[in-house]
Amino acid sequence: MKRVCATLVLAALSSTAAVAGEGMWTPDNLPLAQLRAEYGFTPTPQWAAHVRKAALRLAGGCSGSFVSPDGLVLTNHHCVNSCVQQLSSADKDYIKSGFLARERKDEIKCPEIELNRLDEITDVTARVQQATHGKSGEDYSKAEKAVKSAIEKECAGKDSATTRCDVVSLYHGGVYKLYRYHRIQDVRLAFAPELEAAFFGGDPDNFNFPRFDLDMGLLRAYEQGKPMRPKDYFPFSRAGADAGEMTVIVGNPGGTDRQLTLAQLELARDVDLVDSLLLLSERRGLLTQFRSESAEHWRIAQSDLFGVENSYKVLRGHLAALQEPAVFELKRAQERELREFVAADPVRQGKYGAAWDEIARAVAVEKAIGERHDWIEGGRGLWSRQFSYARMLVRGAAERAKPDTERLREYTDSKLPALTQRLFSTAPIYPDYEKVKLGWSLTKLREILGTGDPFVRKVLGNDAPEDLAKRLVDGSKLADVAVRKALWEGGADAVARSDDPFIVLARLIDADARAIRTRYENEVESVVDKNSELIAAARFDKYGTSVYPDATFTQRFSFGKVEGWIEKGEPVAPFTTIGGAFGHATGAYPFALPQSWLDAKAAGKLNLDQRYNFVSTNDIIGGNSGSPVINAKAEVVGLVFDGNIHSLGGNYWYDGRLNRAVSVHSGAMLEALRNIYGASALAQELESARKR
Amino acid sequence: MKRVCATLVLAALSSTAAVAGEGMWTPDNLPLAQLRAEYGFTPTPQWAAHVRKAALRLAGGCSGSFVSPDGLVLTNHHCVNSCVQQLSSADKDYIKSGFLARERKDEIKCPEIELNRLDEITDVTARVQQATHGKSGEDYSKAEKAVKSAIEKECAGKDSATTRCDVVSLYHGGVYKLYRYHRIQDVRLAFAPELEAAFFGGDPDNFNFPRFDLDMGLLRAYEQGKPMRPKDYFPFSRAGADAGEMTVIVGNPGGTDRQLTLAQLELARDVDLVDSLLLLSERRGLLTQFRSESAEHWRIAQSDLFGVENSYKVLRGHLAALQEPAVFELKRAQERELREFVAADPVRQGKYGAAWDEIARAVAVEKAIGERHDWIEGGRGLWSRQFSYARMLVRGAAERAKPDTERLREYTDSKLPALTQRLFSTAPIYPDYEKVKLGWSLTKLREILGTGDPFVRKVLGNDAPEDLAKRLVDGSKLADVAVRKALWEGGADAVARSDDPFIVLARLIDADARAIRTRYENEVESVVDKNSELIAAARFDKYGTSVYPDATFTQRFSFGKVEGWIEKGEPVAPFTTIGGAFGHATGAYPFALPQSWLDAKAAGKLNLDQRYNFVSTNDIIGGNSGSPVINAKAEVVGLVFDGNIHSLGGNYWYDGRLNRAVSVHSGAMLEALRNIYGASALAQELESARKR
Repeated sequence: MKRVCATLVLAALSSTAAVAGEGMWTPDNLPLAQLRAEYGFTPTPQWAAHVRKAALRLAGGCSGSFVSPDGLVLTNHHCVNSCVQQLSSADKDYIKSGFLARERKDEIKCPEIELNRLDEITDVTARVQQATHGKSGEDYSKAEKAVKSAIEKECAGKDSATTRCDVVSLYHGGVYKLYRYHRIQDVRLAFAPELEAAFFGGDPDNFNFPRFDLDMGLLRAYEQGKPMRPKDYFPFSRAGADAGEMTVIVGNPGGTDRQLTLAQLELARDVDLVDSLLLLSERRGLLTQFRSESAEHWRIAQSDLFGVENSYKVLRGHLAALQEPAVFELKRAQERELREFVAADPVRQGKYGAAWDEIARAVAVEKAIGERHDWIEGGRGLWSRQFSYARMLVRGAAERAKPDTERLREYTDSKLPALTQRLFSTAPIYPDYEKVKLGWSLTKLREILGTGDPFVRKVLGNDAPEDLAKRLVDGSKLADVAVRKALWEGGADAVARSDDPFIVLARLIDADARAIRTRYENEVESVVDKNSELIAAARFDKYGTSVYPDATFTQRFSFGKVEGWIEKGEPVAPFTTIGGAFGHATGAYPFALPQSWLDAKAAGKLNLDQRYNFVSTNDIIGGNSGSPVINAKAEVVGLVFDGNIHSLGGNYWYDGRLNRAVSVHSGAMLEALRNIYGASALAQELESARKR
Repeated sequence: MKRVCATLVLAALSSTAAVAGEGMWTPDNLPLAQLRAEYGFTPTPQWAAHVRKAALRLAGGCSGSFVSPDGLVLTNHHCVNSCVQQLSSADKDYIKSGFLARERKDEIKCPEIELNRLDEITDVTARVQQATHGKSGEDYSKAEKAVKSAIEKECAGKDSATTRCDVVSLYHGGVYKLYRYHRIQDVRLAFAPELEAAFFGGDPDNFNFPRFDLDMGLLRAYEQGKPMRPKDYFPFSRAGADAGEMTVIVGNPGGTDRQLTLAQLELARDVDLVDSLLLLSERRGLLTQFRSESAEHWRIAQSDLFGVENSYKVLRGHLAALQEPAVFELKRAQERELREFVAADPVRQGKYGAAWDEIARAVAVEKAIGERHDWIEGGRGLWSRQFSYARMLVRGAAERAKPDTERLREYTDSKLPALTQRLFSTAPIYPDYEKVKLGWSLTKLREILGTGDPFVRKVLGNDAPEDLAKRLVDGSKLADVAVRKALWEGGADAVARSDDPFIVLARLIDADARAIRTRYENEVESVVDKNSELIAAARFDKYGTSVYPDATFTQRFSFGKVEGWIEKGEPVAPFTTIGGAFGHATGAYPFALPQSWLDAKAAGKLNLDQRYNFVSTNDIIGGNSGSPVINAKAEVVGLVFDGNIHSLGGNYWYDGRLNRAVSVHSGAMLEALRNIYGASALAQELESARKR
């Protein structure tokens, strides 16, 4: 599982008291009373601060943690998969062979990974709300963006290369917090197992359990060319998670939609999810066939195909949840309860009463223009690495010439380090693959907007989509990092003079794309933001603050315990073993274990009874991938890599009977490093960290 | 457009009086009063009988008509497309070059086309209802199948090679009629234009208008090796359709769902349509990439890809209609009206009152087992020509040993000629393509039913899907017609002894497939059939018989007129011209006209002002493709090949403001034959037919 569908994320809060296991708690508001009652556990402020700083965010959409005093970072294989692929070539396929740096000098830098350590949280609610007070539509949108950019710029100051500051809207605008992170962009790959071990069972087993995956990767954080020496890190527990044990998961859930209004949920069910699933299905067929064409195509497309299949399963689960009458009934009852509470008091009604209808109005606009926005500005119609570089260059030139507070949000000074990391990535570009993706997405653009649409005609001219894709890819030099660097540094003049066909195209359509974006921001987003903030305030009035905000890809603590569940009347045990993996194997992809595993077993070196994967009741969602599972002593007992199939409905509600997080056991990671991969130095580093 | 989704077809009737243009009328119940009032037209019984017998059905899912006394048959290119592809090879690609038999001896037999001329309709309601009276579930299902098979066998007698008899359930069981057809299986290709002309605009323009397609094909019916000499045929009108003129379309609409219950409509909206669309999307991506791999792959996959894209667009239109709140409101009101009528009288309530809830119960069962049925018995999980042959052989051996009335419906004596035509088809099989389709569908089978599902394990064993597909295709000899014939003629013994891997697989899973089919028939179909019949009877009580039944892929007359519509405030003119095609062309696929067109224009031979395509208000649906558009004198003024985008909602209701049929003008067909294709003999045959 991985973070998906971030554009749908709208923060909100639960209207009912959290049930056991439920809750994605911010580090500064842990549910202390519940923890004492449920687990007899009382985290001290020191414990919480230590955990907060040992945990990490992977800015691209995952979680991780420091696991040694020498900056070793634990996360999932599927979170480093694209790095592994980017470091591979036709000769050296680390996806297939796995990767192990026997010494630190062998560790290789990942072109696009950024780590964030959360150093401080500050409340900026008053300042943000003051800036937007009394405004609506475009005024609201501009004011909100400007104040956020200003706060972030003040926070990062001149250290934006190593300091990242994000204003986060929690409780859907009920609260605004400034998150200050330490930013690390020199991140090197230390270990990744073979895909066959990391993703054993493949798409069929994804979101299922029992499970047998070594979905781990080890990175190392570097600063000034040397391994980082973090003060806070999690030692490994060799014994690992035990049945019934309290498990704490600290990570960055990407987004939940637990408190959307009915109008928003209906839009998701009837339009957004169906459209997204249809698109993913077609991409999936396309990539499946492309991948089957040769070993090289397999290597090139596998990471994208994983992402597509993963997202497909996630959104299918979302749709299934929303098509379940009981779920909608629950949502209907919750909305009714809150609206009745508001309507019962004339003052409240005056302040909040119109919010739901205003959101419904924004939803109607989204229904009318959302698809156009997604295809023109959202990038669906131009599925191409080179085009996205061209857009960054064209916009970067225009935006950097403006004052920080007036720029598009992703071009403000505090955001540029993340953007330029992507823009200057050394990851290879495969022209044939780019042509396939771009040609196909242009065909879809024409289909969705219509052959006669002026924007479509502007892009395609008299070309067939695949001919245009060929001409663009063959004619462009943007695959060369040096060319991109020169254009970035050359600024507006260089970009204006460029005759690179992707730059020409990005220039040609930039005004159209900005126009639909502006309309979307002013007529949809700002209306939703403003009115969701009112609903959030109404919720605070009614339910107080002992609740958690919807997920926002920021750090959250989730408390649960190791426990199976009942599936159609049959109990599902919480653990699998390494031996079980051999029983589950058929020898055929994706149920084939790699040779290293077969050899280790044959040599009698492997502890087949070692606990391998396990489930716990923690409330997590995509984005939590790579989160450490720790015990009360803040030791790593596991590594989150998935949820069970029922966890997908967790986007809308938490069902403690069925919803489970799926993790790799810490003992299995040590066992595999030592006895399968001969990674004794890394295993030693993890184990000795434990002894301090 | 083409017939799709036949399994969803459930006949029913409109609860409101038909509006102008609306109605798919059976030949024995034309709306005479309406015709007189609306068009001042009174068809005589002789006129109706003549039209009925000049019109034809293509048993595979299209319509056509005799257009000369020498058995020339007019239909769409997209209805003969698979024949054109089957007659092509890497050396001779008639899809690309088009096909013209300059003399009759050059006409080539289509391997899988069967024509049906409707000779007689007899009412058999009493006999069918007597056989099923008082029965339900499995008893009902068996009795219904037995009586239908018996009636059909009596009707066809020993002439089943040339006589086809189908018992048709109209008004959803309110009426049963026996349709006796003259069956013609020696059908030869005389003319097909290039795909670039026939399907100019491709998928982007499909279901759109203005339109510029020469979507025509000419076949010739043969008997005893000689061209047929039909008494009834339609002469061509050179002047063709004029604005405002009454147009009669006679053809075989495949199915409409205008009177499903709310429970059935909700199932379609929430489950069936979404599932089908997701499947089609993934197939589309797969075939798109396969087709792009080489010219040969393009040729091999184009017909399938057309079918997939066409179905996708159709079902997307169905989903859009059902997601339109107004459509569901209409349906809700209609159901309420009828249920209140039933409830108002205790006798009616006793007879019909439970029917809606019974259908809702069947829908719940369908929700639970429908997917399993589609994937195991419906063929979704084994997308392979060779597997379908293997199943026919295995089942054919078992079924032919039983009495006719106890067989599976498609193996009764009266159905065997159609089945063996497919089984003994000489159409080529492309092993690499079969492997791609089968491997992919097996992967989906595993995904949908689950890795651990016993049926999946039985099929896959320890194989990866693509490995199994390779082993089956490489190991099988069923691509050879002689092998299939020997197995068919060898009967049960030969099939039992065969070690062909597809036969082995078909034998292995036959009991499972039959079991889910039986369950589906007994718990879903028979319950729906029985209770729909009750609802139909209630409708007759309330609305009488001056209404038309839902479409059932049997002959219907539709009356309308040539007329544009208003699209978003702008009028759409009803005609395009041949010159317009050149204006619409970009030179790039699918907007490139073939060289023959460019040459004809350059030579100044082409009448650019000739009307080309046109729209009319006739009420049609997929299956009507290839229907002649005739005038009051029963002359061909056009050829139906599509509906506009609004016509897709016609599956659920007819909207006279927007719903339009799209046709090729008769004058354009003559113009193209003479002045582009040099097909003067065929043009002469069409024009001289007119003069008789």
